[in-house]
Amino acid sequence: MEERCNKSAHMSAKEQLRIICKGASQLVGEKELLEKLERSCKTGKPLTVKLGLDPSAPDIHLGHTVVLRKIRQMQEAGHEAVVVIGDFTGKIGDPTGKSRGRAALSDEQVKENARTYFEQIFRVLDRKKTTVAYNSSWLAKLNFEEVVRLAASTTVARMLERDDFKNRYENQIPIGVHEFLYPLMQAYDSVELKADVELGGTDQTFNILMGRTLQKEFGQEPQAALFMPLLEGLDGIEKMSKSLGNYIGVQEPAQVMFKKCMEVPDSLIIRYFELVTDIHPDEVAQIEAQLAEGVNPRDVKLRLAREITGLYHSGEELRNAEEFYHAAFSRKSIPEQIPELIIENEEKDTLADLIPLLIRNELITSRNELIRLLRQGGVRLDGEKLCEEDLSMTLMGNQVLKLGKKKFVKILK
Amino acid sequence: MEERCNKSAHMSAKEQLRIICKGASQLVGEKELLEKLERSCKTGKPLTVKLGLDPSAPDIHLGHTVVLRKIRQMQEAGHEAVVVIGDFTGKIGDPTGKSRGRAALSDEQVKENARTYFEQIFRVLDRKKTTVAYNSSWLAKLNFEEVVRLAASTTVARMLERDDFKNRYENQIPIGVHEFLYPLMQAYDSVELKADVELGGTDQTFNILMGRTLQKEFGQEPQAALFMPLLEGLDGIEKMSKSLGNYIGVQEPAQVMFKKCMEVPDSLIIRYFELVTDIHPDEVAQIEAQLAEGVNPRDVKLRLAREITGLYHSGEELRNAEEFYHAAFSRKSIPEQIPELIIENEEKDTLADLIPLLIRNELITSRNELIRLLRQGGVRLDGEKLCEEDLSMTLMGNQVLKLGKKKFVKILK
Repeated sequence: MEERCNKSAHMSAKEQLRIICKGASQLVGEKELLEKLERSCKTGKPLTVKLGLDPSAPDIHLGHTVVLRKIRQMQEAGHEAVVVIGDFTGKIGDPTGKSRGRAALSDEQVKENARTYFEQIFRVLDRKKTTVAYNSSWLAKLNFEEVVRLAASTTVARMLERDDFKNRYENQIPIGVHEFLYPLMQAYDSVELKADVELGGTDQTFNILMGRTLQKEFGQEPQAALFMPLLEGLDGIEKMSKSLGNYIGVQEPAQVMFKKCMEVPDSLIIRYFELVTDIHPDEVAQIEAQLAEGVNPRDVKLRLAREITGLYHSGEELRNAEEFYHAAFSRKSIPEQIPELIIENEEKDTLADLIPLLIRNELITSRNELIRLLRQGGVRLDGEKLCEEDLSMTLMGNQVLKLGKKKFVKILK
Repeated sequence: MEERCNKSAHMSAKEQLRIICKGASQLVGEKELLEKLERSCKTGKPLTVKLGLDPSAPDIHLGHTVVLRKIRQMQEAGHEAVVVIGDFTGKIGDPTGKSRGRAALSDEQVKENARTYFEQIFRVLDRKKTTVAYNSSWLAKLNFEEVVRLAASTTVARMLERDDFKNRYENQIPIGVHEFLYPLMQAYDSVELKADVELGGTDQTFNILMGRTLQKEFGQEPQAALFMPLLEGLDGIEKMSKSLGNYIGVQEPAQVMFKKCMEVPDSLIIRYFELVTDIHPDEVAQIEAQLAEGVNPRDVKLRLAREITGLYHSGEELRNAEEFYHAAFSRKSIPEQIPELIIENEEKDTLADLIPLLIRNELITSRNELIRLLRQGGVRLDGEKLCEEDLSMTLMGNQVLKLGKKKFVKILK
């Protein structure tokens, strides 16, 4: 019998599975997932793709989009996403990957963080094919007897196999008994949603597999578990993270995003194509071949910067960003045209501190001219418009300051 | 300032403490308990004495009365008991002292067991000063968030210090995560009841001390924890237990009870006086001195048998039981008067099987005479009246059968 697909999906189950596996670290339940996809193709009933979000780190960068993009790709194939905001879970704190329990969040914080999340995740996910759920709506209703049922589904020994629990136990760092309930809460979310697939980073392996255990315990077909790698940041070494400063934020202006993409280390170009773009696996293979044949990585990176920036900005913004990049940073096209100013006194590194240097270099004639330009919106730093208040802003260095329509200067530290 | 005591209590706080400590294995919080007793003496407000019962073994024997008698002694001093029926806890099963989790009980079983319990515990406790509570009435209402709060009060490492958990963990025998919730439930009972003292066997040490932890966590003064030893049975070695057959049941007829008390090994006489009678510590000390001076243990045991039997039976029943004991078992007073019948075929050991032997020994003239005697209530086995249905009852051996008013026969196997 020939395979037929549902209306919204244009791909066979096998082709879908190929796209799902692109860049993934591990897929547990591959055979089951293929069966689910085939069934979905036949019946036209979309799969439920679950993503749990812990609302404690509200700024989303490309590292977070690794799972989001994968879900988007599954939405393109016709499936439905459920984003579970762990508002109940967040009240306890997530010990995942931490050596100590994380502080519990208040209801207020959870709500505020969730609002910020939504603005950002819908830059990736298809809003029409996404349901947002708060796990407090079912977890808060569970009574002691039901909690006991959840807890009875697993053992202390299995909990202590989880890396972070194991390390803490061996190093005599206390583990609260309540922390054993956290993976069970997350697992019960899958039961409640009857999830077909759950996605997460490799640091979520234990918790997501617990979902399979609990679904079986409740007589459900277990979800497939798709683990995506943790994306390295621009330094090429550490996991992308806001606190390490090696990130590309999804809300950053097009020019900033484009420039940061051009800073991706050559060794990570293919990984970024795989993990944070929607480019088809076949095309990624072609790009990999080109690099192997000696194509200039800079040219490939321009493609990467276009792909990524284009996902979060309009065509026009993308074009402007690329033009700006070439004007400001690409020495090949406009060599030596941008003067460089070096801030020598690290304690005098605000825009206001820079005024004497700007006058000496004939970029402005006076402090008043700068202020007038600021008021008119004629001053940009790495493409971002500055205002008068920004005079006291600290300059980080390696930034391009644009004054009026034609004057550029590169600030070094 | 002179110590004054409340109306019902006739003793000073220190004297009360002395009686409380009689026979006890350990008292945690002795200083606090003395303070509580002194406060109670001053205010006249009784202390709340908690006893948790797991309704899984409904037959109460003297081993169970060790804690019950202690509570009775505290009631005599004016305090109030709360007996907590662990109906909620029982649904999970108590892993205490077991290598594997105990099967959960149904609501029906719990209710039936509790009914049986009450008939028996009020043979020891003062009904007027006892409140019966079912912990399901508060535990069933706790929601997930409240359970998390309980669980957060302790650590995985501390749970794994409990002997049975430790052994199971080390021997890779699975411990369900829900089993970690059981001690917390029992501990929360103390919070709910604002218990001043909790009693239990030494096998309950961990759980009862957890009550102190949780009370402090909830801002309460912690309960004192009074641990009573586990009573050895009539074999003098194993813990008294129905399944081992080395027990004295509180519902047994006076004659049986009296006879069994006389079988207590000499080495345990003082322990029995301490743990299962209400005799004052000073008097126990006198008895101990008498034994040391060479008084015949048999005479001391007669006193013990009188004390114990008198606690569960009327004065008349006690007198009859003692007379019967002397007639049936005390060879000194009536030697050789009772013929012995030996059941030789172990498969033919019912009362009906015995009829030919009884006729041959001229104890009855016919089967019909035995049936008439049974119908008239003229047949007793170890003092218990038999009826016609008992013809098919198995005879255990070493029992005294009484036929009519004067005929005795000892049945051996």
